[in-house]
Amino acid sequence: MNVEQALLITSETPYMAVDLNQTMDNIRKFQEIANKGHKTLRPHSKTHKIPYLAKLQMEEGASGVCVQKVAEAEVMFNGGISDILISNEVIDKRKCDRIARLSKNNCRISVAIDSLEGATNLSESAAYLNRVIPVLIDINIGMDRCGIDPEEVLKFHSELKKLPNIRVEGIMAYDGQVHSPRAVEREEMVNRERVIVHDIFQKLKKTDPDIKVLTVGGTPSSEIWSHFEEVSEIQPGTYIFYDMHCQEMGLCSMDEVSMGVVGQVMSMKQGKRIVLDAGYKSISLDQGVYPVAVNQKGIVGKVVSMSEEHTVIKPDQGDIKLGSKVLLLPYHACTTTDFWDYTWIYDGKALPVMTKIMGRGKRE
Amino acid sequence: MNVEQALLITSETPYMAVDLNQTMDNIRKFQEIANKGHKTLRPHSKTHKIPYLAKLQMEEGASGVCVQKVAEAEVMFNGGISDILISNEVIDKRKCDRIARLSKNNCRISVAIDSLEGATNLSESAAYLNRVIPVLIDINIGMDRCGIDPEEVLKFHSELKKLPNIRVEGIMAYDGQVHSPRAVEREEMVNRERVIVHDIFQKLKKTDPDIKVLTVGGTPSSEIWSHFEEVSEIQPGTYIFYDMHCQEMGLCSMDEVSMGVVGQVMSMKQGKRIVLDAGYKSISLDQGVYPVAVNQKGIVGKVVSMSEEHTVIKPDQGDIKLGSKVLLLPYHACTTTDFWDYTWIYDGKALPVMTKIMGRGKRE
Repeated sequence: MNVEQALLITSETPYMAVDLNQTMDNIRKFQEIANKGHKTLRPHSKTHKIPYLAKLQMEEGASGVCVQKVAEAEVMFNGGISDILISNEVIDKRKCDRIARLSKNNCRISVAIDSLEGATNLSESAAYLNRVIPVLIDINIGMDRCGIDPEEVLKFHSELKKLPNIRVEGIMAYDGQVHSPRAVEREEMVNRERVIVHDIFQKLKKTDPDIKVLTVGGTPSSEIWSHFEEVSEIQPGTYIFYDMHCQEMGLCSMDEVSMGVVGQVMSMKQGKRIVLDAGYKSISLDQGVYPVAVNQKGIVGKVVSMSEEHTVIKPDQGDIKLGSKVLLLPYHACTTTDFWDYTWIYDGKALPVMTKIMGRGKRE
Repeated sequence: MNVEQALLITSETPYMAVDLNQTMDNIRKFQEIANKGHKTLRPHSKTHKIPYLAKLQMEEGASGVCVQKVAEAEVMFNGGISDILISNEVIDKRKCDRIARLSKNNCRISVAIDSLEGATNLSESAAYLNRVIPVLIDINIGMDRCGIDPEEVLKFHSELKKLPNIRVEGIMAYDGQVHSPRAVEREEMVNRERVIVHDIFQKLKKTDPDIKVLTVGGTPSSEIWSHFEEVSEIQPGTYIFYDMHCQEMGLCSMDEVSMGVVGQVMSMKQGKRIVLDAGYKSISLDQGVYPVAVNQKGIVGKVVSMSEEHTVIKPDQGDIKLGSKVLLLPYHACTTTDFWDYTWIYDGKALPVMTKIMGRGKRE
């Protein structure tokens, strides 16, 4: 991202900044990957949480978005996105009612499912509003989080088929465990997962002509999956901004990270430390890895500690001044975005635009 | 906290819940500590970020609040709190203008200071509105974050005295480094810090009759500081809710933690794992320690992994059902509160009240 432009924004610190040019490059890079593999691209909107950016993704060719929560689906729908997959389980009856209401409003909303309880609640909500809601069977391919174990999928599928007002359209197989910094290891993991998914998908397709969707992959694995014929859709998220975790995995360069948080040097001990007015309430630390601090001249120094409102840096640059600004590139973009009500978006041509992060904090 | 009542709240999950009875007990416990030591108690409002709770603290005897940011000061002032210490440095001229404006509106606002640049900006803003703003010299007593090193304080003080429209009222010596789980170690640390603080405070008082305030201590160290005569004020924060970090330090029992996040079991593999719909975007993981999962029967099991929207638990209880609710007690309360736009507050007598967390996300 253009660091100089990020630092030039005349806002009180700290603030979040997005480089729109770099973001567009990132959007196009993954759209190209999807196009080459003849897959649809359905990005996770939780990385940015901004309908405007989701629309840019769709203008470049994305088929719709993934969200994780019903409230996020509502935000995206109200922001003009009408093809939404809730790539996560929903159990609560009131949430199922909200999904049915979205469907009734002509949102093409589909849902991941791994329990008969969830499916039954959704079926009832859909029936009440006379809708048929597409569902995808969520399969556990090694993350051991949500999802049906592979050997139980056929039985589960036949039970789902008995429920009215939902239509099983395919499989979701998310592999969040694939984030080794070694590309070879990531490829080996996906190749192993593929065997499982391939087998189930073929069996389901034989018994049910409705089965068409095979949606897989995060940012670290989507390109690998895109080479497999049976895959219909890839669903990366972080790629739109990238982050230092992606950089560590070799998925992007540091320059390709397109979002960060700008803080001000608000205290310093000459030659020993500088302290920014942005801490781990501004840049997420959920992965336990500090952000990288840069300014117009490059890396500012080594982050030595963080607290809620402070980042302490041992500076490499000798001439940093109290009151000057520093850009922090986060290790985890999605959760960093979630801290902010607004972000500045800039492209170097027009004035930066303060843009509401509509999906922030939309938890239910 | 009353877990049963927290789980009974009829809101879509996840949601944050505060037990008001337990919170009042916590407020009174620390007020008692302050009263016994004849200190004023000025709690950090960043733990709860809710003017209503700050007012309850003041009704029990607190002298005002600490905030870390100008925007937080504005939130507290607009919520009815008129004695506020910004216990953090401010450099930016526009922020200094905002402080002066608060002062002009009859907010008794004081500011921590560790640079002549910050003091000069504040002095100019105060002069513009014809106000005199009290400042406290922030002293670094071992945290190596903000603050003037002890040997430089006298010189710094004499420079500050030359600036118009600010009045040096004393010293702030915050010791966030004191969080050893061993009480004996915490006491040893504070005793060492005290020697430094005592020396400076005596010297400053000799040269300047305005010097009256000596404000110190977080939740882990405030009780220790309260025994020292020269201390005028303690400023703990987390004690209002406590958290599992406080429990680990022996400052409270698990039952005394008065806030948590309620999630729903939204996926499970019988006998192996349950998955909640609340992850580390709902409960902070900045300290790298998982929350503790409880329900009406006690501890639910061991948290084995977390992701943005999921907490995976290996259950000890054998009969947990899909769709049931679980309360997560966070390791770090302050940053967990910062995730939520609203919290439910309950006391078991009236209906739970959905209360806006006014200070959430107020970063600048």
